[in-house]
Order: sequence, then structure tokens, then C-alpha cells
Amino acid sequence: MTVIQELKRAHVVIVGMGLMGASLGYDLRGHCRRVTGVVRRPEAVAATEDSGCVDDATLDAAAAAAMADIVVLATPVRTILRQIAELGPLMKPGAVLLDMGSTKTEICRAMAALPAGVQPVGGHPMCGKEVAGLSAAESGLYRDCIFVLCPLPRTSPAALALARQLVDFIHARAMQLEPARHDHLVAAISHLPYLNAAALVWHVMAMAETDPVVWDVAASGFRDSSRVAASDVRMLLDILLTNRDAVLDAVDDFLGRLTELRDVLASEDENALQERLLSIAQARRDWERMRKTH
Amino acid sequence: MTVIQELKRAHVVIVGMGLMGASLGYDLRGHCRRVTGVVRRPEAVAATEDSGCVDDATLDAAAAAAMADIVVLATPVRTILRQIAELGPLMKPGAVLLDMGSTKTEICRAMAALPAGVQPVGGHPMCGKEVAGLSAAESGLYRDCIFVLCPLPRTSPAALALARQLVDFIHARAMQLEPARHDHLVAAISHLPYLNAAALVWHVMAMAETDPVVWDVAASGFRDSSRVAASDVRMLLDILLTNRDAVLDAVDDFLGRLTELRDVLASEDENALQERLLSIAQARRDWERMRKTH
Repeated sequence: MTVIQELKRAHVVIVGMGLMGASLGYDLRGHCRRVTGVVRRPEAVAATEDSGCVDDATLDAAAAAAMADIVVLATPVRTILRQIAELGPLMKPGAVLLDMGSTKTEICRAMAALPAGVQPVGGHPMCGKEVAGLSAAESGLYRDCIFVLCPLPRTSPAALALARQLVDFIHARAMQLEPARHDHLVAAISHLPYLNAAALVWHVMAMAETDPVVWDVAASGFRDSSRVAASDVRMLLDILLTNRDAVLDAVDDFLGRLTELRDVLASEDENALQERLLSIAQARRDWERMRKTH
Repeated sequence: MTVIQELKRAHVVIVGMGLMGASLGYDLRGHCRRVTGVVRRPEAVAATEDSGCVDDATLDAAAAAAMADIVVLATPVRTILRQIAELGPLMKPGAVLLDMGSTKTEICRAMAALPAGVQPVGGHPMCGKEVAGLSAAESGLYRDCIFVLCPLPRTSPAALALARQLVDFIHARAMQLEPARHDHLVAAISHLPYLNAAALVWHVMAMAETDPVVWDVAASGFRDSSRVAASDVRMLLDILLTNRDAVLDAVDDFLGRLTELRDVLASEDENALQERLLSIAQARRDWERMRKTH
């Protein structure tokens, strides 16, 4: 039942060898007793082992989970939900189950239903790249990013400490949050911006039906504003559907604010518009400055 | 009354030594007969001349305009509107008046009212940087960017050819558009994204009042989606107020599309949501690919 105390003595099993899982493997391999990668497609076994991000790769998630001191689920959110139920009960007593999914309420609820011996910790490293997959993975991906940890009431201090060791080791910044609070926050700063970007691209697509030159004149402002609309849809669907209420609240609040900006512009109340836009621009600049001093 | 035929023989007067005007100066100086920069503040004369972006700087816009073969207005849109009326009538017969303002309908309307001898061409180089001002200016800023040109019915072929020479010389890509069409297009790909980013930052500001940690968890998605909200408000106010109708139309269309995405998510119609988001992601990726092949 005891949790292993040192990360370097742990056999870490990472389920999912995409960008996140494989990047974690690059960071951990050689610094833990063993790093095993679990893949879904037979041809991925050799590709994963050849990449060098793990000591070994396997298709057998169940056997790997049963041997692990730490299992890290690095798959889309609804796959994580399934894997918690499938793999969690197979784990050794005292083994730690960490996930890297982008929403936390449903995942932590699923973790709460696991057998008492398993030590679950919800996790969300807030980083990524535009490109996905094993080939985009790299050592150092997690450096300086926020890594949210959501321990459950049942999680032992030793298990949480081991998860923190892992976060520290990859040079991420651990931040402990309640699952609901996490989901409320990421709805605002990640899921709402995604739907906004999607609606913006959709607006331009509709305009392009009558005037395709709109794609030619789209410049850096559009590029930045719409970038996340090209994100992996399967991943995003899982996120939106497992954080629906918080996302809908965020969208509704946003719609109200954009409508208010619209109405001030329509009324040509220049002073009111200027005052509002200045305070917003200042807040955005303050955030940028704060971010750079970290 | 004749327009000078070669850019290299022209005395170019650039009004406004901010990012755009000074960068143009860096590109043109030494390749035209003379490049003069017009500044507003007495202390800016020496700073502009010291920077090396012009042959000489002056406070006297009227005298400079009267000597120019080409006047380029590189100021905010409503300042351009005033300068067209103030400086245009002072220009030599056959001299070309080009502007670099971000909206074109009102500017081209003001240009149409000029004395017959002046040769006006509306312009909008679609580039920029996050930082503004003389100190941010650099040679090569315009390379590969779209430079919209809006000749008026009265504009002579020779004047338009000279404006195109200038655009070609700075390695920008000339695109000829009607002013109303230009304004409709940029409302979609520039002014709407600005208001969206502002509303997004405002949403996060409101959330931060009860949970300031939202600023800490904001990551790359928020950074990109909100970047333009930090733009220069004075410049943006001019843009929004001189393109109000097109911007309001764009915002209203966008509000409808975001509401539709919201409603599909609320209904949990996963297939409909997936289909819509996939087509949007594909369009965004197609645009990125097209852009990179230019």
C-alpha cells in the first residue's frame, strides 16, 4: 500500500504516445527506473521505441498498468475516463494514477470511484504546440508551464508529493486547484477562445462564399485570433462535452460583453468606447508583462 | 500637371514618423531624390533625423507638402482625413497623395473633394507590429505584405503606376480594391477580431475580480486569442468609428454564429458539433498552408 517515495525508483507507464505523453517520456527516460509507453496501433510500438522517448513500448495497457508505480494517462479526456475505469482497478496498491486531461471535474469523479488502494491525482499541464503526435514531441515541452494538480480527498500526502516530484522534475510549475474551479477557469481562458476562434473562421468562410479575396487579405491579426480554431477537433470535442456547463456560462457572459461593445460603437459614444477599450488594453499589457517576469 | 514617372526621381514627403511612416522612410531613403519626414513634436525633428530613416525632418507639413512629388500620410485615420483637407490643396499639380490608413471609404471620399491637380490614391499596407513608434520602425517591414490600393475614378494611370512602383519597391504585394469592398473585408479579418479579443479580455477581467488566479493559468491559447486587444486604442477608435456600419454587420453575423455553436453544444448534438468544427478547422489549416506558399 505504500507509495514509492522517489521518482527515480519508479516504473512510470505513460498511456498515449502523442505530443504530451511522448514529451513526458523524453523528459523522464533515464531518470526513472523504467519508462514504458502504451500505444494503440501495432505499428506504433517500433516507432515509439525508435524515437527514444521510452525504454519500451507496448500494446498491452493492462499488463503495463499492473506493473507501474506511476501510471500517466496522456489521452483525450473521454478516453481517460474509460481508461480510469479499465486500468485503475488493475494497478498495484499504492501506485499513483495521474492524468493530463484538459478538464478535471468528470475525471476526478471517475477517479473517486476507484478501489481504495489506488492513489489518484488529477493533472493538467497547460502547454502544447500547434502540431500534435509523437513526431512533434520534444524534451523540455513542460518547462515553465503551469501544471494543475487536483488531488482527491482520498489522495495520500505521499502520492501527492510524488506527483509534485514529477511536475518539478520536468520544470513545470505545480498549482493545486479544486476540479470545478479549474474547469471554470479554463472555460474562460481556453475553451471560450476556441469557440470564438471557430466562430470567427466560420464568419470568414461565409464571407468567402461571395468574396474569396478575404482569405488573401487576412493578415497577422486574423492569424493570431483564429489560430486555435485549427486545434484537434477530437480533443476539443471531449473537452467541450465534459465541461459543457462552464463553457456555456463563459460563452453567455462573453456574448453579453461583445454585444455591449457593439452597442457602444453603434451609439457613437466615443468617450465610453475609448474608456472601455483603454482599460482592456491596459489589462492585456499588464498580463503580458507579468507573464514575462515569471 | 504631369506625374513624375520614376520613383527614384521623386521627392517623397512622409507625414507621421511612427512605425509605418519611419519604416517606409528606411526602405525609400537613398533610392528617391529626397525623403522628408513630417513630425508633430519639436523634439522629434532631431530624433527622426538621427534615426536615419529620412534625409530631413520638419515640423512644417504645409511647406513640405508643397514641395513633394509624393505625399504619404502615415497617421491615424481621422488625422489623415484632416490632413487630406489641409495639405492636399497645397500640393503641386500632378503630385501624388497616398495614405496608409486602415479604412478606405471615408478617406477616398475626402480625397475625391481635392482640387483637380492632385492625384490621390488610397492605400492600406496590411502589416504591423505589436510595438509602435519610430524606435520600432525597421527596413523591410512591408516585405511580402498585402498593400491595398484604392485609386479614385479621377486618379490618372500615371499616378496609380507611381503608387504601384512604390509598393513594388518596398517588396509589398499590391492589391487593387474598391474602398467599400476593402472596408467590408477588413471588418471581418481585422476589426471584428479586435473587438472579440477585447470582449475576451474583458470577460477574464470580470472573472479575475472573484478569482485572480485566472491570469496565472492563462496560457498560449489566451495569449494568441487576445493579443490584438493590446493594440493602440487611439488608432483603433479611428478605425472603428470610420468603419462603423461594416464592423457592426460583422459583429452581428459573428454573434449569430457563436450563438449557433453555443446552442449545438448545449443540445449535446455531438455529430453536428463535430461536423461544424471539423470544417472550420480544415478551412483554417487550408488558409495557413496557402499563406505559407506565398
